Amino acid sequence: MSELEFRRAQAPDLPAIVALLADDALGASREDPSTPLAPSYFDAFRAIDADPNQLLAAVEAGQVVGTLQLSFIPGISRKGAWRGQIESVRIARQWRSRGIGKLMIEWAVEECRSRNCSFVQLTTDKSRRKAHAFYERLGFTASHLGYKMALWRSIG
Amino acid sequence: MSELEFRRAQAPDLPAIVALLADDALGASREDPSTPLAPSYFDAFRAIDADPNQLLAAVEAGQVVGTLQLSFIPGISRKGAWRGQIESVRIARQWRSRGIGKLMIEWAVEECRSRNCSFVQLTTDKSRRKAHAFYERLGFTASHLGYKMALWRSIG
Repeated sequence: MSELEFRRAQAPDLPAIVALLADDALGASREDPSTPLAPSYFDAFRAIDADPNQLLAAVEAGQVVGTLQLSFIPGISRKGAWRGQIESVRIARQWRSRGIGKLMIEWAVEECRSRNCSFVQLTTDKSRRKAHAFYERLGFTASHLGYKMALWRSIG
Repeated sequence: MSELEFRRAQAPDLPAIVALLADDALGASREDPSTPLAPSYFDAFRAIDADPNQLLAAVEAGQVVGTLQLSFIPGISRKGAWRGQIESVRIARQWRSRGIGKLMIEWAVEECRSRNCSFVQLTTDKSRRKAHAFYERLGFTASHLGYKMALWRSIG
């Protein structure tokens, strides 16, 4: 595993990252990995890349084998604590079960620590039972319920 | 209720907002509402106020009677969807049970819609059973588990 590199994603990584997001039980119906990518992916990449509080990560081992997004969020609660938030964690199918996910989350947690975050948070779909066990092994506590509401009327 | 005003919080609102956060079953042990406020609260306010993707809201009815924080988060997932995230929702004890919470969340959701967010998300502590029923009535779905991990070693 010594050859793994954790770095900020660049625009040329985007097709590989979208392919990772799409190769997933839930992502398959949500993403469109066909190239050239839909412009909305590039718009999102530019918004993330321009924001010092967002970090889209590419994990490289010759090719992009993993991704996650980190958001550093300032807040008044908990005496003005910054929180680190992890989203969209994916590892290429053929690279799973080798401990890469653990290294990715440990790297992300260190990034949060270096940004003086008081805690790290994430949500996972209730159906992702293997993910739940994974995060609990890494020291996370499932203390919260995560609610979502689609705003479909905003589209079109 | 016609006199309620929803607006971006300003620095002079901060003691009232921290008092709201502290007057809560979980917040009581997390916050320090004594004035002058701890500098960390002002640091957090400045970070929020300087970030166009953060919105700390004050709900005013002659005085500050409610607060919430909105984060607008760009992401690659879901075809480059922006998500709106709601945090730290509080209403002054004597102003509860009058429908203000519903108006606050509806206002926040409209803010997310106006920023082209595809969905709105939030987490609530598993112990906040009344909050769960509240968000479900407003159309949110508890589709996720919310994990947190403290980074105590980053302090001090």
